Amino acid sequence: MGHTYDYPRPAVTVDCVVFGFEQTDCLQVLLIQRQLPPFAGQWALPGGFVRPDEALEQAARRELKEETNVTDLFLEQLKAYGQPHRDPRGHTITVAFYALVNLWDHTIKAATDAKQARWWPMHNLPNLAFDHEVILQDAISTLRTTIRHSPIGFELLPTKFTLTQLQRLYEIVLDQPFDKRNFRKKLLKLDILKDLNEKETNVAHRAAQLYQFDQSKYKDRQKTGFNFDL
Amino acid sequence: MGHTYDYPRPAVTVDCVVFGFEQTDCLQVLLIQRQLPPFAGQWALPGGFVRPDEALEQAARRELKEETNVTDLFLEQLKAYGQPHRDPRGHTITVAFYALVNLWDHTIKAATDAKQARWWPMHNLPNLAFDHEVILQDAISTLRTTIRHSPIGFELLPTKFTLTQLQRLYEIVLDQPFDKRNFRKKLLKLDILKDLNEKETNVAHRAAQLYQFDQSKYKDRQKTGFNFDL
Repeated sequence: MGHTYDYPRPAVTVDCVVFGFEQTDCLQVLLIQRQLPPFAGQWALPGGFVRPDEALEQAARRELKEETNVTDLFLEQLKAYGQPHRDPRGHTITVAFYALVNLWDHTIKAATDAKQARWWPMHNLPNLAFDHEVILQDAISTLRTTIRHSPIGFELLPTKFTLTQLQRLYEIVLDQPFDKRNFRKKLLKLDILKDLNEKETNVAHRAAQLYQFDQSKYKDRQKTGFNFDL
Repeated sequence: MGHTYDYPRPAVTVDCVVFGFEQTDCLQVLLIQRQLPPFAGQWALPGGFVRPDEALEQAARRELKEETNVTDLFLEQLKAYGQPHRDPRGHTITVAFYALVNLWDHTIKAATDAKQARWWPMHNLPNLAFDHEVILQDAISTLRTTIRHSPIGFELLPTKFTLTQLQRLYEIVLDQPFDKRNFRKKLLKLDILKDLNEKETNVAHRAAQLYQFDQSKYKDRQKTGFNFDL
């Protein structure tokens, strides 16, 4: 049962935009430094070729593991990119994914496949190889839309978090400040939080109330969506 | 500069879920009857192989033109599908698109590449080839999410439309009835319509007011999103 297809086939890769969040002033992006040409020495999104009979998400998770040692993360397909000449080696289609990790639970070290893997602050990124800058911008804009309509943002927080941490996350992703009282009012209206009746420990400032998201309500909102009209 | 890649490459195709709307009782989907194996004689989404150095959307538009004669339509990328064994001919990745057409402006005839192309009502579809049923369900669910958050639905209406037509569109896409007064109140709150001060002509019933969307507000809402909480 040969393929009834005479044309040369494109190569197919996967690439991952991994966003990380911790209590800092901006979102972080995980990049690797390329070892091989093209773009040797340049920074790029982690990724690589899809293997025979390998599912796309499986390929993305394998590459992330090989190049950055990150596993078990929230991963969603973003978009396929196939502009002619986007890869100097020839016709190459890449399927991009975006991932969210909270940096409280993950440590990143460069694995064998990449010269170096490290987190870069969003507002101070190096030049990227291929069309990875375009892919990264699309990922940010998808993240911004999604965080307004679906409780995706919690993937970036530790299991227990304060309302201040949650507000910082929204401020950092959406790149704008919010009024504390207003933000909390709108947030509580979404009705997806569970008050843990528990306070932060080991903090220099006054210990704040800890929250968790309500699993079943969270999942319900992921289905129906909402508009977090900030 | 050869590709530093030893594995056999997957084939890459594009497939299109084309939704049509007219004043009927359900959404329509454009399908083609396959001429060649695999799945010869079965119905499938229009699509085909991506050519060398052809952009993905360009391939989708070319295939739609060749197989169904439809051109100039709203087309968005849905998702790439690469499950192993989804195509009996071997490893094949497809990039799916979804399209919206209003059936007032388009006529469909089978073109040379497909045995037959025709509109099928959503609630009465034939068995589909490959994993096209999965792709179709994903497209519907994306359409349902999108129509609640973005003014995408207007792509399915003629330029001038009545509020009844608009309500029918939402009822059909979301598969639920809405209260007329309530629907109109929420709709007008979105502030994207322009009252044309013009009535329907040649209708048996009492002529209704015609509307158009406000281009700049429509575009603005596409950027910021909304929640049409019906």
